[in-house]
Amino acid sequence: MGEKGPVVFGRHPVTEALKARAPVQRISVMRDARGLPRELFEMATALEIPVVRTDKDRLDFLSGGANHQGVVAQLGERSLTPFEEWYEIVDRESADLILALDQVQDPQNLGALLRSAEGAGCRHVLLSTAKTCGLTAVVSKSSAGADQHLNIGRTAKLGVALERFRQAGFQVVATVPGAPEEYFQVDYTGPTVLLLGGEGRGLPPHLKRESTHVVNLPMLGKVQSLNVASSGAILLYETVRQRVSQNR
Amino acid sequence: MGEKGPVVFGRHPVTEALKARAPVQRISVMRDARGLPRELFEMATALEIPVVRTDKDRLDFLSGGANHQGVVAQLGERSLTPFEEWYEIVDRESADLILALDQVQDPQNLGALLRSAEGAGCRHVLLSTAKTCGLTAVVSKSSAGADQHLNIGRTAKLGVALERFRQAGFQVVATVPGAPEEYFQVDYTGPTVLLLGGEGRGLPPHLKRESTHVVNLPMLGKVQSLNVASSGAILLYETVRQRVSQNR
Repeated sequence: MGEKGPVVFGRHPVTEALKARAPVQRISVMRDARGLPRELFEMATALEIPVVRTDKDRLDFLSGGANHQGVVAQLGERSLTPFEEWYEIVDRESADLILALDQVQDPQNLGALLRSAEGAGCRHVLLSTAKTCGLTAVVSKSSAGADQHLNIGRTAKLGVALERFRQAGFQVVATVPGAPEEYFQVDYTGPTVLLLGGEGRGLPPHLKRESTHVVNLPMLGKVQSLNVASSGAILLYETVRQRVSQNR
Repeated sequence: MGEKGPVVFGRHPVTEALKARAPVQRISVMRDARGLPRELFEMATALEIPVVRTDKDRLDFLSGGANHQGVVAQLGERSLTPFEEWYEIVDRESADLILALDQVQDPQNLGALLRSAEGAGCRHVLLSTAKTCGLTAVVSKSSAGADQHLNIGRTAKLGVALERFRQAGFQVVATVPGAPEEYFQVDYTGPTVLLLGGEGRGLPPHLKRESTHVVNLPMLGKVQSLNVASSGAILLYETVRQRVSQNR
């Protein structure tokens, strides 16, 4: 998305980032730095993270001119779990609510969707590989840290994944503008995959075909559709409403 | 928000912007520009928009180096309607659903909220003046143009405005984390103001006191709250669900 790579700088923050197992890709330290904690080097070695000695100009550049105290850690994107591994976790936890996202490209939208999913008790999110935003620092921040609590997988074949869920007894509910059934007419208390398309052209036909229900979000004004993060929040919380109400 | 002021450039786009009554503040044209449509000058005169003659460097700067064809229009923020004028429109339309927002600061969130409101058939949005994002180009874009179809007011005294609504027979429903009542336990089929706090500290106590209901959004995972645009979408569409269901 063209965003600057995320960094952590300063003796204490970098040490804490390593302790928290943040996805540190590389640590740059000043050639003649003094007072860097021994613990920092020990952890970097243990975690096999390269430590590069460099000059003050480079550290100033990496940290955007902030007070880096001679150390800057560059973070990478969190990697997404490959489908089979992701599905094993779904299976092991006997999950009954899945959020599947096709081509969500805006990091703030993806972050908000992860946050809503986690809030709604949906621990498993599956992303299509193509044209989908990665788990960048912006996504993580927009998710308010929800990404850390979720099982987030990726697949290049979302249709095949949906078929697998249908065979496992899940209903697959996709939002499609103008569909005859309203989203709140579906019973979400059983095993459910919620399927949303990205900000662009909506769901491709082959994914609609893999759905057991296509549902409409009523548009009572002049706009044609909602933001994908808003649509996702509405659907996720309709499952919450039905499930919480049922358990009373 | 520090964003660059929005511009429209090129002969045809500027003419179209004037026709569409976009909030053009000023038009800059090249001193020796040829071929600018007479219609453009006529409309600018009719709409009392200043036309400034300048040089190519200035136009290049204003348009970010794009092919401006000798004309750049600078757009301003859409101004918010003062409360009394806004309320008159609410009253005239006998509106029964209002969205009130306190201190929403992120333009993308505000845009998504406007879009959800318009989609949910809520035509009237009231913003607190303090610490609220203006109706910038980013807001308009994020709203997918919904801002153009809404009555959007401002007030420095949101509490007083809410009291006015209560006296007019509205219920005022505020989301407050941990409130004992779930959001879906309220009947939204009567006249309702939905009240949401911004991204920061949530609703201040004096606004909670002006509410007839404080409701909770169940948080079933580890995150403590949802994005304000997600919360708003959920509440707005709970009103849609109840109202559409009632009318069947």
